[in-house]
Amino acid sequence: MYGAIEAGGTKFVCGIGTGPSDLEVIQFPTTTSAETIGESIAFFRGRVQNRLKAVGIASFGPVDLRPGSPTWGRITSTPKPGWQDVDLAGEVGRGLGVPVGFDTDVNGAALGEARWGAAQGLEDAVYLTIGTGIGGGALSRGRLVHGLLHPEMGHIRLPHDHAADPYPGCCPFHGDCLEGLASGTAIRERWGRQPPDLEADHPAWAIEARYLGLALTTWVCTLSPQLFILGGGVMRQSHLFPMVRKELCRLLNGYIRAAAILQEIDRYVVPPGLGDRAGVLGAIILAEQAARNAVP
Amino acid sequence: MYGAIEAGGTKFVCGIGTGPSDLEVIQFPTTTSAETIGESIAFFRGRVQNRLKAVGIASFGPVDLRPGSPTWGRITSTPKPGWQDVDLAGEVGRGLGVPVGFDTDVNGAALGEARWGAAQGLEDAVYLTIGTGIGGGALSRGRLVHGLLHPEMGHIRLPHDHAADPYPGCCPFHGDCLEGLASGTAIRERWGRQPPDLEADHPAWAIEARYLGLALTTWVCTLSPQLFILGGGVMRQSHLFPMVRKELCRLLNGYIRAAAILQEIDRYVVPPGLGDRAGVLGAIILAEQAARNAVP
Repeated sequence: MYGAIEAGGTKFVCGIGTGPSDLEVIQFPTTTSAETIGESIAFFRGRVQNRLKAVGIASFGPVDLRPGSPTWGRITSTPKPGWQDVDLAGEVGRGLGVPVGFDTDVNGAALGEARWGAAQGLEDAVYLTIGTGIGGGALSRGRLVHGLLHPEMGHIRLPHDHAADPYPGCCPFHGDCLEGLASGTAIRERWGRQPPDLEADHPAWAIEARYLGLALTTWVCTLSPQLFILGGGVMRQSHLFPMVRKELCRLLNGYIRAAAILQEIDRYVVPPGLGDRAGVLGAIILAEQAARNAVP
Repeated sequence: MYGAIEAGGTKFVCGIGTGPSDLEVIQFPTTTSAETIGESIAFFRGRVQNRLKAVGIASFGPVDLRPGSPTWGRITSTPKPGWQDVDLAGEVGRGLGVPVGFDTDVNGAALGEARWGAAQGLEDAVYLTIGTGIGGGALSRGRLVHGLLHPEMGHIRLPHDHAADPYPGCCPFHGDCLEGLASGTAIRERWGRQPPDLEADHPAWAIEARYLGLALTTWVCTLSPQLFILGGGVMRQSHLFPMVRKELCRLLNGYIRAAAILQEIDRYVVPPGLGDRAGVLGAIILAEQAARNAVP
């Protein structure tokens, strides 16, 4: 039995199980770090006592993932008050006395989708969440892209036609990076309404599809994934999918001669196969890995 | 003894050896495919007869790298006349009767730099060439990024301030993608002079540093490399390095809190440790891999 935590800035989702067929979850709002981590630990203790082999955590970030780092497992420079430098993996591990696997929320979701969701059988795939913010996790040759820190895919820069879209962007660090222009926050600030309240033929969506198409173009040229999975609240507006696909094809302009793009674009840019459970299921896989690595 | 071919659109470099200490190379201009491949085969036959264990080829592209594909080892949709659909790996392998390793020129260079050059000991690094065109190869967790096709990093999209830089870009597919705006071809067309003929304080370089800084920003956020290696003819203007580093830091604006960027940027964006030999030395590694894979 594994424990899983999808640690978000708005809510925590805790799960127990081994996969989609037996996963039980609860969720609660993210408040102070002490209270929220305490509630998570209490949930696992109450439900499974000592039968937990390991816990996986897929967390909002930025986080420290460097093996051997003295601050491994911490949330680092988040703007979220009270969560800077919180030792999330350490507190959960000490609280429950089990090994902990730890990665970003979107890396967790990418793992979950690769095992049980839309990316089954693929080695190279990108999972994106377009919600309040924008984040991405990438699998390259079957392994998550990590590196110096971890990808912060929401912060790439894009062409921004100020005449067509005078909105300056909402990213406190970069202004008009992808997240600054295309997150749910940007849509709400630009139009004064929440994304679900904008009708399908509202001009908001052509602008949104333009930015997401530009971002996907950049990632096709950088990561060459076999699949893009687009999740998050903004993508619940499902009419966006055909618009993004069309924009991606238009921008690539036939340069990448792959059937997946030229002939099967409807299957190349898709919603998550696991819906909202990709992250917490990915955390189950992180727990599995931690249990395996802990065997002497 | 391994054979190595760095197959470029302008010249072929053929090498024999096992590494930097014993590598012997010749080079000749790229003409027709029959003539150039023939000349390569003749070189290896003349020099080492039957003592070659395998040949590695680091090729211009796009190329087909998909294992098991019926067109594996071919140059595919290149605009170079007479080279479309040329079975480069197959012809060399049949001509010499040895296993062939095959990858892109920039992936080869990334491998070479990781083994013997600037990226030794690193698992996550990006090699870029900024010359007539722009290309990039990336190592993620010690393996080359491949995927659907292979990265075509020169074709990412960037902010383009038409008031500051009215040049429309020279990419036949995308106009003002990175290659369209920042390749040696773009510099020559924009200013009417070759890059080496533009003095160090010419405004060309601020524009060039701006585009390269934007591109590196996007790749920091996507691939999170531990190192960028910038090669190619344009980067021989070594005054560009501090300008690109400064621009990268300015654009990231403190968001990525890694010492490599915040404190050691001079060691984060560097020229190739192997100079012009990165590609052909990388092809030696591709040959090694092919010899290893061919053992039953």
